[in-house]
Amino acid sequence: MGRTLTEKILARAAGKDAVAPGEIVTATVDLAMFHDSSGPRRVAPRLKELGARVWDPSKVVVVSDHYVPAVDPESAAILKLTRDWVREQGIGAFYDMQGICHVMLAEGGHLRPGLFCVGGDSHSTMAGAYGCYMAGFGATEMTGVMVTGDIWTRVPATIRVDWNGAFADGVVAKDVMLHLCRTLGMDNAFKAIEYGGDTVRAMSMSERGVLTNMAAELGAESAIIEPDDKTLAAIRAAGVAIDDEEALRWRSDPDATYEAVHRFNAADLVPQVARPHSPENSGPVAEANSARIDQAYIGACVGAKLTDLQMAARVLKGRKVAKDVRLLIAPSSRATTEAAAKDGTLAILTEAGAIVMPSGCGACAGMGAGVLAAGEVCISSTNRNFKGRMGHKDAEVYLGSPYTVAASAIEGRIADPRSYLQ
Amino acid sequence: MGRTLTEKILARAAGKDAVAPGEIVTATVDLAMFHDSSGPRRVAPRLKELGARVWDPSKVVVVSDHYVPAVDPESAAILKLTRDWVREQGIGAFYDMQGICHVMLAEGGHLRPGLFCVGGDSHSTMAGAYGCYMAGFGATEMTGVMVTGDIWTRVPATIRVDWNGAFADGVVAKDVMLHLCRTLGMDNAFKAIEYGGDTVRAMSMSERGVLTNMAAELGAESAIIEPDDKTLAAIRAAGVAIDDEEALRWRSDPDATYEAVHRFNAADLVPQVARPHSPENSGPVAEANSARIDQAYIGACVGAKLTDLQMAARVLKGRKVAKDVRLLIAPSSRATTEAAAKDGTLAILTEAGAIVMPSGCGACAGMGAGVLAAGEVCISSTNRNFKGRMGHKDAEVYLGSPYTVAASAIEGRIADPRSYLQ
Repeated sequence: MGRTLTEKILARAAGKDAVAPGEIVTATVDLAMFHDSSGPRRVAPRLKELGARVWDPSKVVVVSDHYVPAVDPESAAILKLTRDWVREQGIGAFYDMQGICHVMLAEGGHLRPGLFCVGGDSHSTMAGAYGCYMAGFGATEMTGVMVTGDIWTRVPATIRVDWNGAFADGVVAKDVMLHLCRTLGMDNAFKAIEYGGDTVRAMSMSERGVLTNMAAELGAESAIIEPDDKTLAAIRAAGVAIDDEEALRWRSDPDATYEAVHRFNAADLVPQVARPHSPENSGPVAEANSARIDQAYIGACVGAKLTDLQMAARVLKGRKVAKDVRLLIAPSSRATTEAAAKDGTLAILTEAGAIVMPSGCGACAGMGAGVLAAGEVCISSTNRNFKGRMGHKDAEVYLGSPYTVAASAIEGRIADPRSYLQ
Repeated sequence: MGRTLTEKILARAAGKDAVAPGEIVTATVDLAMFHDSSGPRRVAPRLKELGARVWDPSKVVVVSDHYVPAVDPESAAILKLTRDWVREQGIGAFYDMQGICHVMLAEGGHLRPGLFCVGGDSHSTMAGAYGCYMAGFGATEMTGVMVTGDIWTRVPATIRVDWNGAFADGVVAKDVMLHLCRTLGMDNAFKAIEYGGDTVRAMSMSERGVLTNMAAELGAESAIIEPDDKTLAAIRAAGVAIDDEEALRWRSDPDATYEAVHRFNAADLVPQVARPHSPENSGPVAEANSARIDQAYIGACVGAKLTDLQMAARVLKGRKVAKDVRLLIAPSSRATTEAAAKDGTLAILTEAGAIVMPSGCGACAGMGAGVLAAGEVCISSTNRNFKGRMGHKDAEVYLGSPYTVAASAIEGRIADPRSYLQ
């Protein structure tokens, strides 16, 4: 019987020939990632109490991205605790204020097809763009992983989501995900989403990461994309040698069993906007009724990679952010800022009036620069617009692609980016 | 009897032919500036209670720089209050997240020789680089200014500080001020500092601003530099038409009476570092004993103008920030970030590993990104290193020029920049 890629990875990690959806297995962890919020500050005291050390420091990645840069002595202390613990445990893969965890895993060359990975963050699903399995867990279970190197999990059934055809100019992966949040809903608990089709194969790795990242908004356990030449090229670009044949065998069987298969036509999609207060409140940008905005935000793991900044720059080149609107841009990583400084993107964005911020989860997680006051309205390239997430509970957040956020910043109202791309 | 430039401005503002040091006068305010921390949130409720409006909105400049970008709903609410109040009072000169107040006054073309200005911030003295008088006042007195347009003040005695000769490469205005904090002390209350000499005349307007800014650390009421061609060029560059003859007549008389005259030889000065916890704990960089650092910070009104960023880039070009050290750069204004993005400075800094932050008072005022944990050590291009100012009271802050901060970031220890400038 054919198996899906997700089932194959779980079988290998569980030391079995095959596993079936619904089966509970104990799997050996190839890679465990957590950050300054979910990680050392929660896990370190427990390990100390247990008299235990990290089972294998070479399999652990730690990223300081939530409390960076520190804005008060408390957050500064959390960052220091993180640094001290990483040093004490001999963990080499530590990214301190270098970018957002899910982006650092890719930049740092930690991902490759077939790996079984766990992460102390809900958007850990993003790693699946590299053909590996990754799911998010809480601090209690991550403590167990740190001690034993294993974790139990239920094998998720796989839902296949195929996109075929070409997008109109101005339509991107973010629009796909906002559309899916509405059409598939946000309650796909314990499911693995497998994305495919020629639209996905044509996407950059950066765009594919949007699909797997926002599987978290679909409520899925994990998400995955079968590896191809682009996957291998990205891994090599991160400085990692890889065996092509071994990597590319991590695919679903042609006769794999999916719980459901959904097919979409890329040409039918228009720019999407999710209205407050949920990603599933999405629809064509026109349905946002040109709502007036106070802030436009380009940030987070999902929405501020170099390609996202380049989208914004394409719209903003030679134009200006509207008076009374602030456009905040927090690139997904320090290397993204560096690349954007070198290729002229930052020059275009700052000339338009954008304010460049340091990399970090920041306003998206409601803990950093760019949060909102009561009554304020924001359009954001991030992944979640739940009530109160980006600041005050009486603020309103709309979600859109970097194109849509940039067009809205120019007009001071939620705007269709297509008229700026001709 | 000859009069100093400061006395001439106060006489004009007080409607008198002449005033003498020690005399108490009531002066008409030409320009009043305050920011999101000192301004509307404190003054607005009082005006409301009084049933009063701003006496002349065209003479008021408001800058949001302390709580930007908002990091929690409270700071977001302060920023919103500021925006709403500015609109309600009809104040046109409002800089919202565009840069630090003292820098915005210059960039915005608000300063010219002979003006009598008041500011709701201690470093308001910085404006004196443009040949005007500006002193800092608290919110109660600023409320009075908002209602009446007048303020009473004691005429300060003027202390003349002359620098002559040329600096060695790597020695800059910041080194001058750290040296003066030690040699003149920090208790020059109710004095006006007038800087002169060929060293000062050779300085850029940006460097002159360091001298007048840090007169606040000397404890002085105000600071001033007689206008010259550079002053006029800077005013014109800000888009303001100016009458050269009228502007240049604002000078001290040759026979003016100074309370003291101090003369220094620029060639004798080496890079200076102030040790914790006061700017007057300064001396040659070698006396800092190569102290180990956790953070290097280039920020604030005084230390992150374009020229400051260019100094750092000159040292950092082709080099890397030390492992375990973070170099944070918060440019003094959005326009500074834009200029640095365009001229290649940001590309050099980010390639070296620097983290670019938005403009604002931030860590320098202990309210924004970059504050320190207990036990951490920082070298900073800012103006104050008082205990607890940049975060935890048990952190240590050293002060140095942007050259010295950049060299220290490379070595992970406080370092002499001169070896990087050959």
